[in-house]
Amino acid sequence: MPLDQTPIIDALIQIVGEANLIQNEQDKARYLMDWRKQYNGNSMAVVKPATTAEVSAILKLADEQNIAIIPQGGNTGLCGGATPDQGEHNLVISTERMKTIREVDTSSQTITVEAGCILDHIKSAADEHGLLFPLDLGARGTCQIGGNLSTNAGGLNVIRYGNTRELTLGIEVVLMGGKVLSLLSKLKKDNTGYDLKDLFIGAEGTLGVITAATLKLFPKPIATTTGFAAMRDIDAAISLLHRCQAASGGNVIAFELMPKTIIENVRHFYPDTPLPISDIPRFSALIEIASTAEDSGTPDHEGTMPLEKNLTEVLAKAIEDGLVLDATIARNLTQRNTIWQIRELTPESEIKAGKAYKSDISIPLKHMSAFYDEAEKAATAIMPGIRIFGFGHLGDGNLHYNLSEPQEKRSDFLEYYPAFDEMMKTLVMKYEGSISAEHGIGQKKRDVFISTKDPVALEVMRSIKVALDPKHLMNPGKVV
Amino acid sequence: MPLDQTPIIDALIQIVGEANLIQNEQDKARYLMDWRKQYNGNSMAVVKPATTAEVSAILKLADEQNIAIIPQGGNTGLCGGATPDQGEHNLVISTERMKTIREVDTSSQTITVEAGCILDHIKSAADEHGLLFPLDLGARGTCQIGGNLSTNAGGLNVIRYGNTRELTLGIEVVLMGGKVLSLLSKLKKDNTGYDLKDLFIGAEGTLGVITAATLKLFPKPIATTTGFAAMRDIDAAISLLHRCQAASGGNVIAFELMPKTIIENVRHFYPDTPLPISDIPRFSALIEIASTAEDSGTPDHEGTMPLEKNLTEVLAKAIEDGLVLDATIARNLTQRNTIWQIRELTPESEIKAGKAYKSDISIPLKHMSAFYDEAEKAATAIMPGIRIFGFGHLGDGNLHYNLSEPQEKRSDFLEYYPAFDEMMKTLVMKYEGSISAEHGIGQKKRDVFISTKDPVALEVMRSIKVALDPKHLMNPGKVV
Repeated sequence: MPLDQTPIIDALIQIVGEANLIQNEQDKARYLMDWRKQYNGNSMAVVKPATTAEVSAILKLADEQNIAIIPQGGNTGLCGGATPDQGEHNLVISTERMKTIREVDTSSQTITVEAGCILDHIKSAADEHGLLFPLDLGARGTCQIGGNLSTNAGGLNVIRYGNTRELTLGIEVVLMGGKVLSLLSKLKKDNTGYDLKDLFIGAEGTLGVITAATLKLFPKPIATTTGFAAMRDIDAAISLLHRCQAASGGNVIAFELMPKTIIENVRHFYPDTPLPISDIPRFSALIEIASTAEDSGTPDHEGTMPLEKNLTEVLAKAIEDGLVLDATIARNLTQRNTIWQIRELTPESEIKAGKAYKSDISIPLKHMSAFYDEAEKAATAIMPGIRIFGFGHLGDGNLHYNLSEPQEKRSDFLEYYPAFDEMMKTLVMKYEGSISAEHGIGQKKRDVFISTKDPVALEVMRSIKVALDPKHLMNPGKVV
Repeated sequence: MPLDQTPIIDALIQIVGEANLIQNEQDKARYLMDWRKQYNGNSMAVVKPATTAEVSAILKLADEQNIAIIPQGGNTGLCGGATPDQGEHNLVISTERMKTIREVDTSSQTITVEAGCILDHIKSAADEHGLLFPLDLGARGTCQIGGNLSTNAGGLNVIRYGNTRELTLGIEVVLMGGKVLSLLSKLKKDNTGYDLKDLFIGAEGTLGVITAATLKLFPKPIATTTGFAAMRDIDAAISLLHRCQAASGGNVIAFELMPKTIIENVRHFYPDTPLPISDIPRFSALIEIASTAEDSGTPDHEGTMPLEKNLTEVLAKAIEDGLVLDATIARNLTQRNTIWQIRELTPESEIKAGKAYKSDISIPLKHMSAFYDEAEKAATAIMPGIRIFGFGHLGDGNLHYNLSEPQEKRSDFLEYYPAFDEMMKTLVMKYEGSISAEHGIGQKKRDVFISTKDPVALEVMRSIKVALDPKHLMNPGKVV
């Protein structure tokens, strides 16, 4: 450690106490690398404040001493947004000690939490009060809400409840220099000035450190019904989605596109996985609808659960109209698990199939089918035999359009990534989509972001960045 | 007109043509005064561009010549946000000629419209495609979507569909200097950089001129049920709201608080107005639930409409639990109209009752009851005999808490406005509410906004304003 860092370290110890400042290389290591081991950086120390006041004191010091800061939550991001770069004149601020649930307000149906709260703990706290916090993703047991907010996390059930931004009523943010921006609010309607809350959500820590948030809670669903439908094509799946939304009053909680390639791959590695229906066409859809109504869990006079009846009618009509070729509805939990099994084994089977070029795109529903086909052709032209694993949240227009290496493995697969990058970028732009639907930009997608985003939008983003962080000390090298 | 304006006028004529530049005082007048005649200003001319390119050319000229610009839609705002000030070196830009509906996309369920489209025309265009654009307010036949976007308009049905911000997927904005920011998008998920869209929505034309937007469309409700319930108190009404939301799967489209004072006032001026129930307590609630499900319009085997049955069960349980004292549900359209009649006659009856101090506040539901009572006491202490007309969108936490002059009229009523202002401001702050839930800031609420908003928030807003409009030419004197 260079000598001139001693006064900084002393000042940090004054703020958080010696026990909450990590300087030795071994203990620092896990904060300096992202969990997928794609990025690794350096830092003079990892500092763990317990309160907003401590974060404020750290950002005052950082500003005075020109130290860059990298805010970090559960370190489960996919784009390296919480990993420092190779320089050393920076601090990682871990929010892991800021885990107080400040308030659950059942009357306003809100929960106010600090940035370091683990997503799963927030969900449990809501549940204890008979309410639902719907944000849900694979990392739920590790990720922190501060990270979810900073990346505007998506995940499961976005189709019904929105992404993190839409679930957030208010936030508290510490700005570079230490000023605390208090936007904690329980209000659904507030037209007093510019919408600052949504500017900080999704800014990936480049404009300030989010220290707390007030989130929306919802009534808990009482009943769920799950179906699986063999589709005529993608456009038919989109029509079915709209019909399900209308029939359920907007209560579709999952609508996942499952291509035959993926179903075959899952069955290749897990041959015991049952098929929900016997003939699998090019595309199928997994549909789940939930209801919060008390009587939705009670069978009607014919012995059918109301939601099941509802979905059965929609599917029957869709078969009649030629949109759906065949379909099934789970009559019990075992059947539901069978339907979900293929979807849940998808990521593991994909790994077993070999290397895969991954993406996280969204495309307007109108263009989804054209995009799917054109990308398949283009990828096959680049590498014959490549397998198209394009699946996911069709209901949100968001596919994980992954390219799995051919069955005859190729040692040069990674060398084709720039060609795949270029192909995806070109087609996503052609069809007015997004190169990052839910994972954000971080370090990983910075180049493609800068080369595809409207130049005027980039200019406006940079001018906002300069206005709030003129010295570029907040999470440098990320996003703008 | 000072001589030095001639080249500016010539340049404007080059851009929009002589027919679309209004210079004479008589024709200008209606653009220089808000419709409630609260504000009046001056302007060198009113310019009416037909395209985004023309708006861009005007803003380039304005920047070069240091001319302030005041964007104006249907001029139906309530806070003077579209009215120029007393200076003359400004231009009113009316978007009234920009009324093209660029696209209705039934697959993506979006509509792309230009800023000058009348709200009602957008609703009709959606309707022609079998879909709903849910934004709705009294001025629907006159207001333009550009104004709705710039003020983040609320109105009816916000409880179900959100305000204008939540209904918007993308926007196109012209910045001071003429650059066009293209954020038109049909995507529900897009995490590429800062959320600029939501910054411009609700900025009241102080950051740029919104020229187009892509808006969300929804399936049309097929059936509606309407009820009226006499409530134990406000907290009971909030519990009932939550129960209705759970029971309907979030499909409550109106939940309006109606105090006895208002019902009596309506009946005083319109004695033939029927009471939905015989004994009216201090607070009642008007509830409406809608469904998009095909079978929601079909009676069940007992002859009851599913939605009606649903609401009946909720109300019966609430009576059993002591929340509701008495209730009725409309069995047909006539009964529905009867229930709505009192609510719809409320504004007119309020005017007939005399002068009224008006407000547009939101309060967290948890504090609503305490706020209501304390504000009533405080207002009565300022002026004995004052009548509390606090009604409106309880479902959104948004009340129009109006103070109607005592039955024995007072010539000095207006002199008490500063005292009412102070009282409302103090109590709204005490209960963590907002002094402008849906009407915005404009000129009218600028002082109270600046004196109540978090100072750090104001500072951030000002730094964003300076970053995007360093010469303060965009709608000066409004918001920040």
